[in-house]
Amino acid sequence: MIDATLYYNPRKLLLVADLAGTLLFGIEGATAAVNGNLDFLGLMVLAFATALAGGIFRDLLIGAVPPASLRDWRYPATAFVGGALVFFLDHFLRKIPVPVMIDLDAMALALFAVAGTEKALDYKLNPFIAALLGTVTAVGGGTVRDIFLAQVPRVLNVDIYATAALAGAAVVVACRKLKFPPVWSAVLGGSVCFLLRVVAVWQHWSLPKVGSP
Amino acid sequence: MIDATLYYNPRKLLLVADLAGTLLFGIEGATAAVNGNLDFLGLMVLAFATALAGGIFRDLLIGAVPPASLRDWRYPATAFVGGALVFFLDHFLRKIPVPVMIDLDAMALALFAVAGTEKALDYKLNPFIAALLGTVTAVGGGTVRDIFLAQVPRVLNVDIYATAALAGAAVVVACRKLKFPPVWSAVLGGSVCFLLRVVAVWQHWSLPKVGSP
Amino acid sequence: MIDATLYYNPRKLLLVADLAGTLLFGIEGATAAVNGNLDFLGLMVLAFATALAGGIFRDLLIGAVPPASLRDWRYPATAFVGGALVFFLDHFLRKIPVPVMIDLDAMALALFAVAGTEKALDYKLNPFIAALLGTVTAVGGGTVRDIFLAQVPRVLNVDIYATAALAGAAVVVACRKLKFPPVWSAVLGGSVCFLLRVVAVWQHWSLPKVGSP
Repeated sequence: MIDATLYYNPRKLLLVADLAGTLLFGIEGATAAVNGNLDFLGLMVLAFATALAGGIFRDLLIGAVPPASLRDWRYPATAFVGGALVFFLDHFLRKIPVPVMIDLDAMALALFAVAGTEKALDYKLNPFIAALLGTVTAVGGGTVRDIFLAQVPRVLNVDIYATAALAGAAVVVACRKLKFPPVWSAVLGGSVCFLLRVVAVWQHWSLPKVGSP
Repeated sequence: MIDATLYYNPRKLLLVADLAGTLLFGIEGATAAVNGNLDFLGLMVLAFATALAGGIFRDLLIGAVPPASLRDWRYPATAFVGGALVFFLDHFLRKIPVPVMIDLDAMALALFAVAGTEKALDYKLNPFIAALLGTVTAVGGGTVRDIFLAQVPRVLNVDIYATAALAGAAVVVACRKLKFPPVWSAVLGGSVCFLLRVVAVWQHWSLPKVGSP
Repeated sequence: MIDATLYYNPRKLLLVADLAGTLLFGIEGATAAVNGNLDFLGLMVLAFATALAGGIFRDLLIGAVPPASLRDWRYPATAFVGGALVFFLDHFLRKIPVPVMIDLDAMALALFAVAGTEKALDYKLNPFIAALLGTVTAVGGGTVRDIFLAQVPRVLNVDIYATAALAGAAVVVACRKLKFPPVWSAVLGGSVCFLLRVVAVWQHWSLPKVGSP
């Protein structure tokens, strides 16, 4: 009975979600660094930034300083493990089929969007703002990664990506308003984000542009 | 009598100035996104960032967290209204003559420089630093917008722009030192910034560069 | 006897180290602005950002707001002095031999890495995190400078640079753990950073990349 309560504890949920997403985003950041011809340190910086910049930015904005990922050494350590995996196993990781990588990325996106929204709500932010901060948590790392690589952040013009994070965050906020248990909110919000992202890639959905037919 | 005091209330001034400037800068950010071929979400992100990043950065630096624009949903909502205007009325907005856009932009610049300086002074920062923070408030959004578009921020090498903001901010600081009423400080500082910017564009003034004759 | 204690006062050490490094990094930032064809204001912004962004970022992350460099006008003033030196004496400064500039830069890097690590430790951060923050203090300014210039930050793929800062920061952390007096920690950590950087340039050391032979 005592253990069961842990599953319903939002803080515990946050930690597990954050660490899993951190490893995945760390791997993606390091892979981008390899593609950008950066050295070992650049690879580690991009693993760190891609994995943690979104959450750090969220924590700075809600006033949770030092940010969770700097108070708890497991976050940077997990990101660096992701970087090391890429450094030593890059050839192996590149054999992972693209659809699998897209699924994993969509999963990390969903985890970060949910965790970020939950934390902003815990800090009593307005639900509208909390959904925005959940989205920032999810896409902030990739944005910083692309800025470091001197590129327009892919999140600004690629398919349904931040949009999926925003949709998932909005579902979490709505479920909380309706007094759903935290686990339900998280699972529902995460599923919406994940499915929207994966279906959008599969169906080649994209958002309209001004001037497009 | 009671209502009249509102006009002299610096907080009230800050709110009105911030919201007006937020709409204008949101429109400009969204227009830049259209020019950069971004999709609907990229457009909204650039509207948000251009309108609010300067103030968010100022608030992070003075320790006012969560930043005003995340505590009050009217700020992001106003920025998104600016983005939506561009999305649905881009053809119409492009018919606005360039001189009018320059005047509107100079007005938003002046509003943000004044509001940013006032807030930094309210937080008891050193007058020299307060003027710098007023300038950051005014030009921070445009800087983030240009970084997102992978360009050198225009504020760093275009005409008299940040310089006008700095001049306006310095006037606000000086007026406060001389115990002028807040409204006077704001009007004087804003006018200096606005006029300096508009005259600089009209007269093709620019700052010297090293090595230029 | 009373004065002697000042030499062992970590806060005093921090101030002197920070101001010396601020001037040096301000000069480097302004020089990069001249090379990027920016005007006088862009030059001053890059002097400011290169000199102070690392420390500002560290202070935001550890919750020391307003950041030291905005609470004390001597920091921005020193950075602006560096910018003015470049503006008025650029031709003279360019006659400084490259090896001298590399030594000066390595010195500023070492000063910032040590000062940043000391401050993070003073704020009771985990030693692992404190070493990361010392590195951020040392290389953050140059990173922001390069982002402003729309370039991939040189720190991500140039020789042994952030690596030297990290090594120096790690030595400071280790010395503190071993209860060395603060001056010893600072001198040892700074020397390791400085020597590693200078020897790396001299010997053309670089970090491995994925796929390099």
